[in-house]
Amino acid sequence: MTDELATLESASRQLAESVRRLIDATVRTQVDAATLAAAQAKIDAVTGELSAAPMPDSFGVQESDSGRPMAWGNVMIGVRNPIAPPLSINHGADGLVWSDFTLGAAYEGPPGHVHGGVCAMVLDHVLGATAHQPGRPAYTGTLRIRYLRGTSLGALRAEARVDRVHGVKTFAIGHLADARGVTVEAEGVFIHPKDRGSPG
Amino acid sequence: MTDELATLESASRQLAESVRRLIDATVRTQVDAATLAAAQAKIDAVTGELSAAPMPDSFGVQESDSGRPMAWGNVMIGVRNPIAPPLSINHGADGLVWSDFTLGAAYEGPPGHVHGGVCAMVLDHVLGATAHQPGRPAYTGTLRIRYLRGTSLGALRAEARVDRVHGVKTFAIGHLADARGVTVEAEGVFIHPKDRGSPG
Repeated sequence: MTDELATLESASRQLAESVRRLIDATVRTQVDAATLAAAQAKIDAVTGELSAAPMPDSFGVQESDSGRPMAWGNVMIGVRNPIAPPLSINHGADGLVWSDFTLGAAYEGPPGHVHGGVCAMVLDHVLGATAHQPGRPAYTGTLRIRYLRGTSLGALRAEARVDRVHGVKTFAIGHLADARGVTVEAEGVFIHPKDRGSPG
Repeated sequence: MTDELATLESASRQLAESVRRLIDATVRTQVDAATLAAAQAKIDAVTGELSAAPMPDSFGVQESDSGRPMAWGNVMIGVRNPIAPPLSINHGADGLVWSDFTLGAAYEGPPGHVHGGVCAMVLDHVLGATAHQPGRPAYTGTLRIRYLRGTSLGALRAEARVDRVHGVKTFAIGHLADARGVTVEAEGVFIHPKDRGSPG
């Protein structure tokens, strides 16, 4: 990666981290309506400065100067996407795929707990990562999720591994766990042809 | 709702809408690293102003003065949560539950398409809404998702209805559709006891 691109990636990453803190503050703030309105005006000004000639559509997957695919805008792993925790995906020598991450107030469903849909979103991505290859994404064919109990907001871990492979189909299994143990189990079928299914 | 609470809700809603635009700009901006850094400093200042005495944990579900539950922080429907599209859930006389919403660049998985995990997250919520009752939430027991094809970023519609009810279990079915038709189908089992499962 050129120094210029590395500098841009670092600045993008830091901006996204700041916007994540702003999102959390927006959910948890207890300031009055006038203070909220003043904050809104300042944010609109910053958005205007960032919006000079934006990308016409979405970030997509761009290639770095070295040809490495960059999914900076991805909602789960994108370093410049403030909605992404972001997940950092690890691949073990034994085939285990895992990610340790923290979900705060902005990912809440019932009081104090992660929304069940967010649990499904994370598991779709982590199970899909068992089949995903750089430049050759795997698309989710089917996903089955079983909720054992509520997942507490805070430090979490998602794990997945390949159960079996049949042709273009990778059958993966995995789970989500909070500090007290496994909360959600998942099975997924991920497909390689690019003209099938939806993003894993 | 008192005028004071209505004013706070309106200011919170408008702030969240501004932060959503900021999130989109953060993903799609093409300004240089110096401009990104300048924007970050301004955002950090706003976050500081909003963070005077924040809620210690998450928003949870608070009661309005009229006793109406307010899930303002919910990641799918929370009016003050910038991650939420937010979904607005409609209940038809025929039992149909639907939501029309738009997902932009910040919800991307593969280029130009909604992340499969985001599709699952939305369907979990909309299917769960067939069983959900104010003050009596339904928790997801199991969720099955089948991806027919990629879901284009843009205007989307999610629909769900109750297939059958067995005791505390509501069996719901539904789908997600983009401008070209149905893209993802889902089945879910939602449970009422508050000590079971995870948020629907």
